[in-house]
Amino acid sequence: MARTTTAEPPSPFPDRAQRLASRTAKRDALLLAAVRMFNERGFHATSLDDVAASLGVSKPTIYHHLGNKDQVLFECVSIGLGQLREAAAEAAAKPGRGIDRLRDFLIRYARINMDDFGRCVIRTGDEAMSPDSAARFRSLKREIDDALRGLIAEAIADGSVVEDDPKLLAFTLAGALNWPARWFAPGGALRATEVAERMVAMLIAGIAPR
Amino acid sequence: MARTTTAEPPSPFPDRAQRLASRTAKRDALLLAAVRMFNERGFHATSLDDVAASLGVSKPTIYHHLGNKDQVLFECVSIGLGQLREAAAEAAAKPGRGIDRLRDFLIRYARINMDDFGRCVIRTGDEAMSPDSAARFRSLKREIDDALRGLIAEAIADGSVVEDDPKLLAFTLAGALNWPARWFAPGGALRATEVAERMVAMLIAGIAPR
Repeated sequence: MARTTTAEPPSPFPDRAQRLASRTAKRDALLLAAVRMFNERGFHATSLDDVAASLGVSKPTIYHHLGNKDQVLFECVSIGLGQLREAAAEAAAKPGRGIDRLRDFLIRYARINMDDFGRCVIRTGDEAMSPDSAARFRSLKREIDDALRGLIAEAIADGSVVEDDPKLLAFTLAGALNWPARWFAPGGALRATEVAERMVAMLIAGIAPR
Repeated sequence: MARTTTAEPPSPFPDRAQRLASRTAKRDALLLAAVRMFNERGFHATSLDDVAASLGVSKPTIYHHLGNKDQVLFECVSIGLGQLREAAAEAAAKPGRGIDRLRDFLIRYARINMDDFGRCVIRTGDEAMSPDSAARFRSLKREIDDALRGLIAEAIADGSVVEDDPKLLAFTLAGALNWPARWFAPGGALRATEVAERMVAMLIAGIAPR
């Protein structure tokens, strides 16, 4: 009876889509374990053995999925920079005044810097990387800087931001909003999004009475 | 004749004051060579052999004057933090409105972060240090944070700064003014003092039209 009413048992052999999903899930888990250890201990003090052990696997598993330590680090910062690039593209596509698009981007920028991969972008210095990875890292960061300067230039052009040095303004805003990568502790009194919104409001309004 | 008119030749044996001055000059030269190499190459990529070689001396000379690599790094950040502490004390002692004392400190804070030892304070993560040095480093940094928060609190109290979250404001200002330690290149179009003054003016006035 069971034989006739039970559906076909699932094949013990994963199909192509299942294999791909499994590979992606493994890769994601390895990257998350690595980025958290890099952020907590520093790149130099982190060994791929420790990353692997934290997931109950061995170092060759990391080599297989991600490559060597330099490649793992580059992958981590690429993810963070990809999130920032996406945030810039979405902000740039919005309607409204320049300052509104800029505010939108700045809040997401700050927010990403408080997350695992954005935090790694900020905490990683060129000198930790191979020359080739460092060059690609600098080039990806330059894209984000350019996007921020573009949003600032548009806001100055439509009069919604008053400033005559867009480059220095970009450095000032980015610096203020990079810093949470060093001090923000998840689980503190303020949630990350609230911190991001308040910081951006301070930067836009200034601190002197209006 | 020469014998009667010539002054006593200087002793080839330095006296106590000369020995002390010579020791201080050597120590200063070693610290400057070390901090510049830490800033340029990163702490981990710097060897005391290279620092010593850059001055034509050997590693034991560094051990003699400064101690091991951890102690050299701690000495470098202590100098930067001492400059910041002095700037905070001088600003706090000035007359005038709270915002003027705060502005004064912020400009010097930014300026110090663009110099060798201040730059090292910003670029150094706890994880590069021994646990003992890291604890002392954190404690010295906390003094600067406290001084900044004190200046902010005074400015809020006398109404010259409008903000209801002094702690988050301190992080925001410090972050913006820490960042030049990573991007400011001496010899660029803007002088360091001008950069510091302009950044602080942006932070105080904000960027939205008034």
